[in-house]
Amino acid sequence: MTVEVQTGAVIVDTTRSPYARWRPLPVDGVRLHDSIWEPRRRRTVQETLAEQYRLLEETDRLANFRRTAGKEPGGFTGIYFNDSDVYKWLEAAAWAMATDPTPELDRLIDSVVQELADAQQPDGYLDNFYTLGEMDKRWTELVRTHELYCAGHLFQAAVAHYRATGKENLLGVARRFADLICDTFGPEDAGKRPGTDGHEEIEMAMVELGRATGEQRYIDQAAYFLDARGHGLAGGDEYHQDHLPFREASDVVGHAVRQVYLTAGAADIYAETGDESIKAALDRLWDNMTQRRMYVSSGIGSRWEGEAFGKDFELPNSRAYTESCAAIGSVMWNWRMLLLTGEARYADLIETTLYNAMLPGLSLEGDTYYYQNPLSDDGTHRRRPWFDCACCPPNLARTLASIGGYLATVRDNELALHLYADAEIDAPLPSGDRVRLTVNTAYPWDGAIRVAVESAGSFTLALRIPGWSADASLTINGKPADVELPPGDYARLERAWQAGDVVDLTLPMPVRRLAAHPHLFENRGRIAIMRGPVLYCLERAGNGTVDPRDVRLPADAELSARHEPDLLGGVTVLEVEALVQPLADSWTNRLYQPLGAVGQASPADRQRITLIPYFVWANREPGPMEVWLGTA
Amino acid sequence: MTVEVQTGAVIVDTTRSPYARWRPLPVDGVRLHDSIWEPRRRRTVQETLAEQYRLLEETDRLANFRRTAGKEPGGFTGIYFNDSDVYKWLEAAAWAMATDPTPELDRLIDSVVQELADAQQPDGYLDNFYTLGEMDKRWTELVRTHELYCAGHLFQAAVAHYRATGKENLLGVARRFADLICDTFGPEDAGKRPGTDGHEEIEMAMVELGRATGEQRYIDQAAYFLDARGHGLAGGDEYHQDHLPFREASDVVGHAVRQVYLTAGAADIYAETGDESIKAALDRLWDNMTQRRMYVSSGIGSRWEGEAFGKDFELPNSRAYTESCAAIGSVMWNWRMLLLTGEARYADLIETTLYNAMLPGLSLEGDTYYYQNPLSDDGTHRRRPWFDCACCPPNLARTLASIGGYLATVRDNELALHLYADAEIDAPLPSGDRVRLTVNTAYPWDGAIRVAVESAGSFTLALRIPGWSADASLTINGKPADVELPPGDYARLERAWQAGDVVDLTLPMPVRRLAAHPHLFENRGRIAIMRGPVLYCLERAGNGTVDPRDVRLPADAELSARHEPDLLGGVTVLEVEALVQPLADSWTNRLYQPLGAVGQASPADRQRITLIPYFVWANREPGPMEVWLGTA
Repeated sequence: MTVEVQTGAVIVDTTRSPYARWRPLPVDGVRLHDSIWEPRRRRTVQETLAEQYRLLEETDRLANFRRTAGKEPGGFTGIYFNDSDVYKWLEAAAWAMATDPTPELDRLIDSVVQELADAQQPDGYLDNFYTLGEMDKRWTELVRTHELYCAGHLFQAAVAHYRATGKENLLGVARRFADLICDTFGPEDAGKRPGTDGHEEIEMAMVELGRATGEQRYIDQAAYFLDARGHGLAGGDEYHQDHLPFREASDVVGHAVRQVYLTAGAADIYAETGDESIKAALDRLWDNMTQRRMYVSSGIGSRWEGEAFGKDFELPNSRAYTESCAAIGSVMWNWRMLLLTGEARYADLIETTLYNAMLPGLSLEGDTYYYQNPLSDDGTHRRRPWFDCACCPPNLARTLASIGGYLATVRDNELALHLYADAEIDAPLPSGDRVRLTVNTAYPWDGAIRVAVESAGSFTLALRIPGWSADASLTINGKPADVELPPGDYARLERAWQAGDVVDLTLPMPVRRLAAHPHLFENRGRIAIMRGPVLYCLERAGNGTVDPRDVRLPADAELSARHEPDLLGGVTVLEVEALVQPLADSWTNRLYQPLGAVGQASPADRQRITLIPYFVWANREPGPMEVWLGTA
Repeated sequence: MTVEVQTGAVIVDTTRSPYARWRPLPVDGVRLHDSIWEPRRRRTVQETLAEQYRLLEETDRLANFRRTAGKEPGGFTGIYFNDSDVYKWLEAAAWAMATDPTPELDRLIDSVVQELADAQQPDGYLDNFYTLGEMDKRWTELVRTHELYCAGHLFQAAVAHYRATGKENLLGVARRFADLICDTFGPEDAGKRPGTDGHEEIEMAMVELGRATGEQRYIDQAAYFLDARGHGLAGGDEYHQDHLPFREASDVVGHAVRQVYLTAGAADIYAETGDESIKAALDRLWDNMTQRRMYVSSGIGSRWEGEAFGKDFELPNSRAYTESCAAIGSVMWNWRMLLLTGEARYADLIETTLYNAMLPGLSLEGDTYYYQNPLSDDGTHRRRPWFDCACCPPNLARTLASIGGYLATVRDNELALHLYADAEIDAPLPSGDRVRLTVNTAYPWDGAIRVAVESAGSFTLALRIPGWSADASLTINGKPADVELPPGDYARLERAWQAGDVVDLTLPMPVRRLAAHPHLFENRGRIAIMRGPVLYCLERAGNGTVDPRDVRLPADAELSARHEPDLLGGVTVLEVEALVQPLADSWTNRLYQPLGAVGQASPADRQRITLIPYFVWANREPGPMEVWLGTA
């Protein structure tokens, strides 16, 4: 097998996609030195991979492959989609091989790949739930058993592994299975089996496999799976996004991870086909999600029942589901939208989703996880080391292991910086030039961003001005630059750069008090606090005996930022003199009472309280927490 | 078999219960003539019973019995607890035989009883899911398959049928099964099988069966089942109320119907045993439910996931679950608490639960049902004729068919009126006297209640003064009576009554604006409107194009009551000049924005709006509805 396409360890390869504006950098084109992402990335590579490998063994997820291969006795153990956790781990390990290759990890990956290869059936089939169970039922339970979802994760892992290492062993396993899937699924009049998976994933995976191998049929197959939806093949309901053909959809519905994996796949298909009805549906769905069905944390999927999107404005705080995996899926979707359109709003959302919806899913120690990320809690919701349904831990691992790949993109002779973090960037431009940059910044704690150009050349440097940044300023070599700095768009610096040129972008970071739409009743009269891209919260830990529900921030109260290098891994906290308003005694042991009977509350106490970034909540002693705070 | 105990068609028989203060009247001791309960009761007896019988046949619920008996071929159809729907129907039909006996209904009941008898196994066992399935698994899946729950509904039906008709055919079936259960379940050291059901019901059913038959062992068995909880036999979790021994419980948790069926059973056991640790637990659970986990509608069980109680203050309006069956279960529990204690607060809650939590579950036509009863809706939640899990329709039927039984209770030479409705009451007092009363009232639309004594005698007439009624007044034969009228308690009129004596109780019904506890954030700054025991709501139907979410009631706006005899079956509506506040344009297509960027809204429009009783919502064209309204 000859593979002709190799563009480095990029997360999504739009190099040859006719309808994409940007192409990513390889994840190893960025060396991070910041205090948020790099410690977590390094911990993922150095410790989490080994820990999760051990858990994959302990929970028989790897044994299932050996059992299929006949190397050890036993039937299938675990949930039917457990193979996918192995694949997500492989993907994470592949990204680690791009940035931090070691012979040990290489060997470990190869040994796992060999387990997969040994378990693969002669026709290319690979799914232990069926090979160890009822093989005559394969392909017949797509709505329920995630067969193509698992295949998709295999393909994503294979593509990442191939891009990171150039090795074709895992890619070969993937191709053999993909060929079988292409031969199997399609329209009835082509002599094939109509079908599409109950859990989307195969769509984006097959587009990427097509990109990595140059096989157009994989991309066509992805498009088939997309358009097979909405005709009752995948359950026929909103939960599976099978209630409507994708091109007719307007509302994000059903299982949130499924929904955003579907839109991510549709965006990949659009990048290849330019089909405007797909793009129009993506735009409608994005508007509905961001304007009606998203938390202020950028988290999505509010309903516990079905891990699903709720109706418009159905965004309960303490009963928020907001699965960590849904945040990751949203990043995947928005990353593709950014590559397609070059519009900064997608990068804005990637940034806030990473900080405020994904990162809370991981403990500061990096060894426990949230599945759900509520915006209010009584102190009982704590992170756990693993789950029976363990989608989130390896999903976090693969995202953190490749996090550098989200910082910048290139096209022609242009490089755009989307996320700001202390880093070195080494980017081959499509024009042939090579751009080397050093980014120095304490962002997101401080809005001063210095970009030093280390390599001479004529190219455009595009810098994202976040939507919240009204008063950005920019100098080049210390002199104010004559360039537009539009919030929610990019400053574009087109110039013959000299090595040693220094760009200083300053994004002032006033504290922002956000109000929610009045139909989101739970947040009426309350505010959420952001500074830069970071959402804040109030937890009892560090604040005496305060009940966050009773705290009110006067309109004129100054929230002062102070960096605490030794607190919670180093965070900027916000301090404020707040009112702590005890409840009127008449509420003791009462849930409802006539308005006239509500007693006068005691005068509020003034108390200095400290808000912390929401993404580090619940890393100290348990206690109540609120994102939305009262006003006075 | 000789049955010695027969006290009329009472809902719960506390005649010989040493720790109960009241005993019920037979359901046929009350003839209703009112405009709310009687039309619904009559419709239940005259039409619903026949419709539901047809549905029981159509859905093979009755066929399952015939299949077990070998009368027709086939396996078990439906959900494992489907037998219980037949039993609930039988109970409803039994109550109808008490109030409206016909030879046709009697024959129909007997034919169904014969199906049951023919399906009963030689050892007394009766559960079609197992007799048509894997009999070797019987008793082994109590956590999941509701085996004893089904048995409990059989026993309740049998007791009702025996009390209503004196017939022992169904009671005999029940006794044979109950004897088997008593022989089977118990402590291991008694040589029995430890166990208790995953869905409570058997507890109250076995106490009642013991009362009806005089068999103490059934009551002892109920107590065994109660105390078997909390030791991991029923799942070990909150969902099944198996996380703690009952006597240690303080919070209502888990599946709401299960929780209140359990407390109802525990109350029945307390009535017989006087065990104070049971009563103390009941009191704690009641406080937690009413002070922290109940809607203003008196509905309970806020969570869709698990049909469960939420945490304290977790009471979302549009995503309220508030199952109709949970309301019925709450009535069952509170009825027993009232019988035990004689405290009016339980009657208050029975009344508001019947009007505002149970009745909304039934359409005005009486032929469609709500499973969930949200307090806010966008117009998409509509009643349906039946459900795969069809617990609610026959549960409503058995409650409505026996509704007259909840109006009054007796003890010694005292009769208490708990619920007010146009009715004739014919009550044998335990002292031997017979009291005949006529109640004339348009309650709950009007607080004027006339009680005419039709039979001479010395007895105490106790009249409930609802908790909301601050300015009650009372005359006897037109003259002010020297009697205390304490809200939330009873006025007690002890007198040698003459036939023709007339008591006029007047309960003024000002409109009440209720506020919710400040920690119930969704309702902050909003009010719920009640008048008398009736909760009101605003739905778009009848109110032009109003969006109920944008309506604000000024503090001084007068809500004027007007009876509309031709509207929605005859209801008193509330009219008010409200402000309709359009949203600021800055909210268009935005979910969050900085406080300072929120635009000025246009001035509010004044608009005359009409509120209707919540229990008749969604009986006109679909549209949005809110119980909680904004204030201005």
